[in-house]
Amino acid sequence: MKKIKIKVPATVANLVCGFDILGMAVHEPYDEMEISISENPEIIIRHTDHYGLPEEASKNVAGVVLLKIQEELDLKHGFEVIIHKNIKPGSGLGSSAASAAGAAFGANILLGDRLSKEEIVHFAMFGEELASGVRHADNIAPCIYGGIALVKSSDPIDIIPLQSPDLFVAAVHPQVEVKTSDARQILKKSILLKDAVKQWGNIAGLVAGIEKNDHALIGRSLNDVIIEPVRSILIPKFDEIKTKSLQLGALGGGISGSGPSVFMLAEQEETAQHIAKMMKEVYDKIEIDSFVYVSKINLIGIEIINETEGNKPLN
Amino acid sequence: MKKIKIKVPATVANLVCGFDILGMAVHEPYDEMEISISENPEIIIRHTDHYGLPEEASKNVAGVVLLKIQEELDLKHGFEVIIHKNIKPGSGLGSSAASAAGAAFGANILLGDRLSKEEIVHFAMFGEELASGVRHADNIAPCIYGGIALVKSSDPIDIIPLQSPDLFVAAVHPQVEVKTSDARQILKKSILLKDAVKQWGNIAGLVAGIEKNDHALIGRSLNDVIIEPVRSILIPKFDEIKTKSLQLGALGGGISGSGPSVFMLAEQEETAQHIAKMMKEVYDKIEIDSFVYVSKINLIGIEIINETEGNKPLN
Repeated sequence: MKKIKIKVPATVANLVCGFDILGMAVHEPYDEMEISISENPEIIIRHTDHYGLPEEASKNVAGVVLLKIQEELDLKHGFEVIIHKNIKPGSGLGSSAASAAGAAFGANILLGDRLSKEEIVHFAMFGEELASGVRHADNIAPCIYGGIALVKSSDPIDIIPLQSPDLFVAAVHPQVEVKTSDARQILKKSILLKDAVKQWGNIAGLVAGIEKNDHALIGRSLNDVIIEPVRSILIPKFDEIKTKSLQLGALGGGISGSGPSVFMLAEQEETAQHIAKMMKEVYDKIEIDSFVYVSKINLIGIEIINETEGNKPLN
Repeated sequence: MKKIKIKVPATVANLVCGFDILGMAVHEPYDEMEISISENPEIIIRHTDHYGLPEEASKNVAGVVLLKIQEELDLKHGFEVIIHKNIKPGSGLGSSAASAAGAAFGANILLGDRLSKEEIVHFAMFGEELASGVRHADNIAPCIYGGIALVKSSDPIDIIPLQSPDLFVAAVHPQVEVKTSDARQILKKSILLKDAVKQWGNIAGLVAGIEKNDHALIGRSLNDVIIEPVRSILIPKFDEIKTKSLQLGALGGGISGSGPSVFMLAEQEETAQHIAKMMKEVYDKIEIDSFVYVSKINLIGIEIINETEGNKPLN
């Protein structure tokens, strides 16, 4: 039985001003997934973690992706997936995207690498649809392409990998629940044109800063006048964490995806470590458990740990 | 009397999806301005063209810029300006920006190059304020910096010059009147968030395409779902010109500034010439006079033709 083991990274969607269009892969946290292909057409999903996610294929994020691949490619094969999840569901760090992207990526390798990256994104988005009701690609794309990815459009799929800068990411996941669907519902359906103009000035500045590797420009473009003022209300101590991060030398940052995780970018690892320490302390003080992560921007995305054919490793 | 003669280019603001934040300089058409500095504190403006623009300094776009420079720098000097205008007022090709930017640029050279580019933009914006009621910099910035400029913010002034691609511009100015103030008034004050997301996907794509010199990406990012559908109603035959331009090989294009001029980008000069010919024919057919222009993107912006000190040329 052909089998692959992969490491699937967490991702930070939106990158402050790029709501629904930008995402970035990090190194920590990450899931591990073992995927094997079988003659039997069944899709079997097993979680080794204890998050209580459904294992029935049609109700599991990885499962629906594999069902869709089976259907659209008219496969006789089935898949078995073991998911060791470390990216906590509901963290805003792309937990569902990791399962979805990992399933599509892994299946593709097992099928002889026959899909393009856009096709892998296409299949993975069915997992996001199951998780959040929206077929968005802003976590999936950086997971698959690595680095920072621009989702210019998700229908048709048009992903532009950007020149990812050499920066560190500090992220905190406070143990409070913010459902993606709630975080979407509190957004206003219409916005002022003058705010939109400010926002696209920041987005254009951020993309230019990323492409030019201009850290100062990245920093002063990480401003969100539309989403953050609304969503940050759901995140305890958001303003304090942001203010203190900037004081500690962060270039900028904000809500990761729809939260509750908060991320900050920094030029030096030491700065990122200081920020992570501060983040933890802020939540300790109000007795909210939290997890902090420090890593570089992940330029690779999903990585293959090993491949085997039966009991033999594959080339 | 110290004197300078400069060539001040037309500019295309907005670049379709970048409403109020992007602008591009072209080579054709352009104004010529002769500016001299005098001991006498008077500001004297003279137009050699026949557009009937006011020559009283406080009512003239170049005049108010020079008055502001005089005031803020506490100058005892005055200026005399002769403007040979070729960029027609009301064309949407940055006619007022040319006068304003030219005055600020020229005065700075005559004052020993003491101002930064941001300060030149600062002064020039007072001219735009007189012309349109809004202190916008999306024509002024490319005029001064050359190429394609991102106005990340106009207050505080934050201009990012982008990597301008090697492309040709075809533009048509049909002889119909669209006042900038009217073109602003018909815009909706609020827009749908989902349209804003599409728009910032396009803006991010356009900036990435410009920085990567990816012409195909530039082309497919030149889409405006917010401003163009409203403003294009004011421009006769807009849809026909756009459709035919794309058929002739244009990468994309749209309204120049607030119109009525329409511009298209093309990879080859020949393509741009064909598009310009088609544009003229479309307007000839409905008996609207028009002017067409073909040139490369202007990477330099304002150019000094010559400088003289009294009757002697300066070094």
